[in-house]
Amino acid sequence: MTGNIPILKIGRTLLVSIQVELSDAVAESLQNDVLSAIERSDAKGLVVDISGFDTVDTYVARILADMAKMARLMGADTVISGMRPEVAATLVRMGYTMDEVRFALNLDEALALLGHVLAK
Amino acid sequence: MTGNIPILKIGRTLLVSIQVELSDAVAESLQNDVLSAIERSDAKGLVVDISGFDTVDTYVARILADMAKMARLMGADTVISGMRPEVAATLVRMGYTMDEVRFALNLDEALALLGHVLAK
Repeated sequence: MTGNIPILKIGRTLLVSIQVELSDAVAESLQNDVLSAIERSDAKGLVVDISGFDTVDTYVARILADMAKMARLMGADTVISGMRPEVAATLVRMGYTMDEVRFALNLDEALALLGHVLAK
Repeated sequence: MTGNIPILKIGRTLLVSIQVELSDAVAESLQNDVLSAIERSDAKGLVVDISGFDTVDTYVARILADMAKMARLMGADTVISGMRPEVAATLVRMGYTMDEVRFALNLDEALALLGHVLAK
C-alpha cells in the first residue's frame, strides 16, 4: 500500500474514506493531501466518510473539524458522512458536537447535500 | 476502526476503496460483505478503487477478478479504478491481465463507464 489515504473524485467533489487510525503523521499528511487535491482539481465539495470508525476521540474530531475549516477557506464545502450511532453518542458525551461541520447519514446523502444530482 | 472495509453507495453503484493489505481473512470478509451489500441495496454497479495500491500480486488480482465475477452473477457490473502505472506494468509482466474485468483511470471515469450521469 502507498501509506497515504486515497483521495477520490466524484464530479467536482473529493471523497476521502478514512479506514486507518489517524496518527499525528497520517492526519497531517491527509490534511496536506486534501488541500493540494482541492487546489489541483478545482473541487467545490469534500466528503469525509467515517463509516469505518467505530470509535472516535477529541483529537480525531478536531482534525476533521480543522480539515473542514481549511477546505472552506479554499472554497470547498465539507460534509462528514457515515458516522455510526455509537460514535455520535460518544462525541456528544464528550461535549464535542462539531457545530461548524455538516453531516450526512451516508455518501449518497452527502452528495445530495453538496448539490449533486445523480442519474441512474 | 471496525476492521472491515467500508462499502459506500453512490446511487445504484457500490464503491469499495481498498486501503489495507488484502490478507486471506480480509479478502474473504470483503467478498462476503460486497455480495451482501449488492443483495441488500439492489446495486447494479460496483467500483473497486485500488489507487491505494502501489504493488499487487497474483493472489490479490485473483481475489479482485473473482469478486467481479461473483458480482456479475448477482447482476452488478464491476469496474476497477485507480490502478497505478507500476501496478499495471507488474500485472502484465506476471502475465495476469484480468481480461474478464473492466478498468477505468479513476472513480469519475468508472462511474461514467457504469452509465452514471453526474450533474454539478
